[in-house]
Amino acid sequence: MVTMRDVAERANVSIATVSFVINGTKRVAPETRARIEAAIEELDYRRNVVARALASSRTRILALLHPDLEARPNATVIQFVMSAAHGARERGYDLVLWPVNDDEQMSHLLAGGLVDGALLMEVQIRDSRVDRLVASRVPFALIGRTENDDLPYVDIDFATTIDEAVGHLRSFGHERIALVTQRTKAGPGDEPGRIMRAEAAYLDATSALGRPPAVIPVEGTSAGGREAARTLHDGFPDATAVILVNEGASAGLVKGSRALGRSIPDDLSIISASTTRELGEMIEPSLTVMAAPAPQLGRLAADALIDQLEGVQEAPPHLLIPCTLVPGQSVGPPPQARRH
Amino acid sequence: MVTMRDVAERANVSIATVSFVINGTKRVAPETRARIEAAIEELDYRRNVVARALASSRTRILALLHPDLEARPNATVIQFVMSAAHGARERGYDLVLWPVNDDEQMSHLLAGGLVDGALLMEVQIRDSRVDRLVASRVPFALIGRTENDDLPYVDIDFATTIDEAVGHLRSFGHERIALVTQRTKAGPGDEPGRIMRAEAAYLDATSALGRPPAVIPVEGTSAGGREAARTLHDGFPDATAVILVNEGASAGLVKGSRALGRSIPDDLSIISASTTRELGEMIEPSLTVMAAPAPQLGRLAADALIDQLEGVQEAPPHLLIPCTLVPGQSVGPPPQARRH
Repeated sequence: MVTMRDVAERANVSIATVSFVINGTKRVAPETRARIEAAIEELDYRRNVVARALASSRTRILALLHPDLEARPNATVIQFVMSAAHGARERGYDLVLWPVNDDEQMSHLLAGGLVDGALLMEVQIRDSRVDRLVASRVPFALIGRTENDDLPYVDIDFATTIDEAVGHLRSFGHERIALVTQRTKAGPGDEPGRIMRAEAAYLDATSALGRPPAVIPVEGTSAGGREAARTLHDGFPDATAVILVNEGASAGLVKGSRALGRSIPDDLSIISASTTRELGEMIEPSLTVMAAPAPQLGRLAADALIDQLEGVQEAPPHLLIPCTLVPGQSVGPPPQARRH
Repeated sequence: MVTMRDVAERANVSIATVSFVINGTKRVAPETRARIEAAIEELDYRRNVVARALASSRTRILALLHPDLEARPNATVIQFVMSAAHGARERGYDLVLWPVNDDEQMSHLLAGGLVDGALLMEVQIRDSRVDRLVASRVPFALIGRTENDDLPYVDIDFATTIDEAVGHLRSFGHERIALVTQRTKAGPGDEPGRIMRAEAAYLDATSALGRPPAVIPVEGTSAGGREAARTLHDGFPDATAVILVNEGASAGLVKGSRALGRSIPDDLSIISASTTRELGEMIEPSLTVMAAPAPQLGRLAADALIDQLEGVQEAPPHLLIPCTLVPGQSVGPPPQARRH
């Protein structure tokens, strides 16, 4: 079997230099690279990445386990996916995309031995997929959190994010603030952690206002957003501001509110939390958003997992990053303040 | 070395059944599956997917080569990516995401021997990455086309798409129709094929109207869309309709036109081609779109590549699918027609 040493000798370079070229982990001078590539070609070294994996019992492949996203992926999810792929590649790992719709399918894939580690997205508070991951003994990191905070995770800091959104609205004089969340097919207690944590943070941040909370769960679609506009209008007419934790419903809420004769922000102020600046810019009026740190989190998740695999970390990573306030034109003083 | 036969014997099932479980290619009864998983565990078969790959000199891994999408991915791209991952998985293959920013990096990755085949996105008319792919001898399929139509590809049928968009606008009475395309960093002749093909189809479809063409290339951003609105307003004031082949600029064109006092569709009709229904719904007024067949094309690209790998195809696939017209509220008769 042809080894990396054979390639190094043929190309008259060190084994380390051959490794840099093969694993893409470091820049190598073009002529040197050309010599190494010629040696790889002459010796037909191509398939030996597999042999190396066998010898080390490592494949340097990571899986990104995600639910079936084909239907309606949002801008934030793709930022996670792409930045995790980048982060992995920079450290010489490859990221495979595994769309998994049930736990059993996930277990088979993990049992196949293809991957050294896994990243799990859209984590729920109680998540049977996490139990399967633990049982598989494949190292993993979560993007999101379960109720068990001992597991390794990276996540958006929803408490700080919602607190800051409420604070921004209060600074304009709003006292009656509603929250629009995402309705999912999951039963109570099994929702994505982000929804439950955002709701808890909202209840906490608005309790000082002494008003009953208004939480409106709708589908993550334009139709869901229009439904939220009607529910707000009919059920909570005194709410002067709303925070969305539902990217897909943002545009529908704006369009639906205007269709009901409510001007943004004169009659209703809106902040969309955990989304992208680009989404805010697309809507008229431009939405004030709390931009998700998705590009950073995807990369941090890959790093956290690789650190674990390479034994360079001391404790399971627990990283929380809040969203960043990006003011648009959808927040203003409440109507009663403007009447004074 | 533990083989699949050992697992089959221990679990008292056929080798085929073990293969179904390991490769996730077919449903197996839960008790049978549990027995096989127990046997895999007891015999420590985990890493042997790598051994099998070595023996067959195939890894059943495909690469999706994409440019650096971290900055501003659009909705259509992610539909391609996710549907290609699904399509691969259903046939027992895994899709790795490889963000590649230069040809050299791509060559190293392909030389590593990890993947059996590659899918290439964002193909340019003259694309040095395609030359590298050919040189690598790794089988591939393109999502998009170069000027060499002999290579295997799947692509949007831009000629039919633009022709239908022009026909839709003409049926409302429009005669002066502009095209907004995407400005890229590539030099002339090296642009993405979709832009050049859309432009050619536009020139073709509008030539019968006897008006000089108006092609406006701008960045694929909200700012780009606002720039297009100004250019239209100042440079082509008689244009009563516009077709966008620039998803990211769609919202900005609408907002920018309204800011210049032009009502949509009373003063200007807009069709956004090669995008998603969801984008159309987000904008006010809802845009008439030509919805891209991205979910189908991603899957077809994976199928085309796998057919090639498995020797079940007779000729390189050449698949073209047009976008689908989804009427919104952004197209109406031109102002002069309404004045009659």
